[in-house]
Amino acid sequence: MKIRIGIVGYGNVGRGAEKAVSAAPDMELAAVFTRRDPGSLKLVDTGVPVLSFDSATSMVNEVDVMLLCGGSATDLPEQGPYFASMFNIVDSYDNHAKIPEYMAAIDAVAKKTTAVISSGWDPGLFSMMRVLSEAVLPDGATYTFWGKGVSQGHSDAIRRIDGVQHAVQYTIPIDSAVDTVRSGSNPELKPGQKMRRECFVVCKPDADENKIEEAIKSMPHYFAGYDTTVNFIDSAEYAASHTEMPHGGMVLHNGKTGASTQAMEFSLKLASNPDFTGSVMAAYARAAFRMSSEGLFGAKTVLDIPLRYLSEKDRQTLIKEQL
Amino acid sequence: MKIRIGIVGYGNVGRGAEKAVSAAPDMELAAVFTRRDPGSLKLVDTGVPVLSFDSATSMVNEVDVMLLCGGSATDLPEQGPYFASMFNIVDSYDNHAKIPEYMAAIDAVAKKTTAVISSGWDPGLFSMMRVLSEAVLPDGATYTFWGKGVSQGHSDAIRRIDGVQHAVQYTIPIDSAVDTVRSGSNPELKPGQKMRRECFVVCKPDADENKIEEAIKSMPHYFAGYDTTVNFIDSAEYAASHTEMPHGGMVLHNGKTGASTQAMEFSLKLASNPDFTGSVMAAYARAAFRMSSEGLFGAKTVLDIPLRYLSEKDRQTLIKEQL
Repeated sequence: MKIRIGIVGYGNVGRGAEKAVSAAPDMELAAVFTRRDPGSLKLVDTGVPVLSFDSATSMVNEVDVMLLCGGSATDLPEQGPYFASMFNIVDSYDNHAKIPEYMAAIDAVAKKTTAVISSGWDPGLFSMMRVLSEAVLPDGATYTFWGKGVSQGHSDAIRRIDGVQHAVQYTIPIDSAVDTVRSGSNPELKPGQKMRRECFVVCKPDADENKIEEAIKSMPHYFAGYDTTVNFIDSAEYAASHTEMPHGGMVLHNGKTGASTQAMEFSLKLASNPDFTGSVMAAYARAAFRMSSEGLFGAKTVLDIPLRYLSEKDRQTLIKEQL
Repeated sequence: MKIRIGIVGYGNVGRGAEKAVSAAPDMELAAVFTRRDPGSLKLVDTGVPVLSFDSATSMVNEVDVMLLCGGSATDLPEQGPYFASMFNIVDSYDNHAKIPEYMAAIDAVAKKTTAVISSGWDPGLFSMMRVLSEAVLPDGATYTFWGKGVSQGHSDAIRRIDGVQHAVQYTIPIDSAVDTVRSGSNPELKPGQKMRRECFVVCKPDADENKIEEAIKSMPHYFAGYDTTVNFIDSAEYAASHTEMPHGGMVLHNGKTGASTQAMEFSLKLASNPDFTGSVMAAYARAAFRMSSEGLFGAKTVLDIPLRYLSEKDRQTLIKEQL
């Protein structure tokens, strides 16, 4: 019998999760849940029912794991505890500073369910690499670089400036900083020394480009202190070249063992950030389902879950073929 | 109270494990066990007792985890079950084809102990990356490249040729093959298309270099079918440049999600292969100790163990600081 998946929230990550579930031979999509008018959604796989949030309570016996694909700012703090009280869930809650608080709220209700929070790639796979590399080489330093990729928060910040029609901001690791880290010198790097910011902006008619560029570059927290480039383009170029959502990054760790330097690197190059996040969530849905079957209830993170739970292969096969 | 570690076998990996235990703030080395005359061993940290294998039975209450640092061909098949019947153990058993058989032998005796087998980096960390990447991106292909690094087996094979005094063989990934994999084309690659072999040989007086080179390049299984380079050097150059044990490699995975290509890479650049293996084993000693305390007995692999067990930090701290 296949693992029956529900998707909650049908934005970019929800669509990515749908593709991942379709690609998994041991999963099937049972339903998509939305706060919008269910009739208004056009699914990638049109055969699956679209239901309202309210109808989730009647689906407890039809769905094994709910993938919560909403945002961390307002959706998940409300939806996480609601769904985790009834279903096994997986989410990609990514507000790093508030994870302990969010986790406690989920753990309080996940008494008979398994809730994997903050899966995805950071938090998620990158967290795993940070913990692994520091445990193996404690006499060392870990560096996380993000990009090249779109930062939604920084893109939104530019869009709020007067005269801006469209905008996208790419976070890009500074090559010389990456090289310095790879050399094993374990430098101290401020965020502005690790990454630069490249912006593509479409102005409204008669907007003052100089004023917009100045407003971007001087924006505290977002751009001040960073090497920021602003490119003004027209709507056609924006539509042609800047609507994809690539991302990626690296976790680098250099450590000493005696006199020897040892280097560990993990990197991602993602053509579609939301598709990849959806794929990670689908793999952890398998883990949530299995752990729940074994009575391992409560809030879990990627640090709590053995890797064999992620694979569709059984333990003996993994040990024989992939160890 | 610190985790009390015993080291079984004091070769290169044993010395690497000793350094790793010294660097870990929550571990202490209780004793080193050897089959040799205990008085003949010179330890990196000379304060620790060196004992014979036979005296291990009397140390059951003095050692929390034994790190088995012997070889996979003859040492571990005998020592693994012997020590796992009395102690929590960690080893780096690396005979891939025989892991299931070895694991069954360990599991049969580890009734009240936790036995982590085949830790290290391949099998070990590389196995984890293979399982993780295939679970997240099932519509893709995984490639493992080894090197640049010394292959002990190939070096030994050269030394058995008539007229050879010293020899070392480096396995080196073929750059163009790595580039092809990174391009996302998922090629089919035979071993000889993935890596080349570079040999440094010191001849005995009056040896025939041409004959030795021919014997190397035509050796079945080891060198035939590979792009092999043979360099003849003198003893001084050998001693100056070829006695370190560097190694490393990469696990590359490219997968599709819908129309998008996603790439995951994990790489190691190790100045000292045995030091790194010892460091991985020390991190898994922490896991073995904790799992044993929780009654999680039997043979385990890196695929069975949550990453949080590897860190000296507790779960709440990891979630707060590193997730």
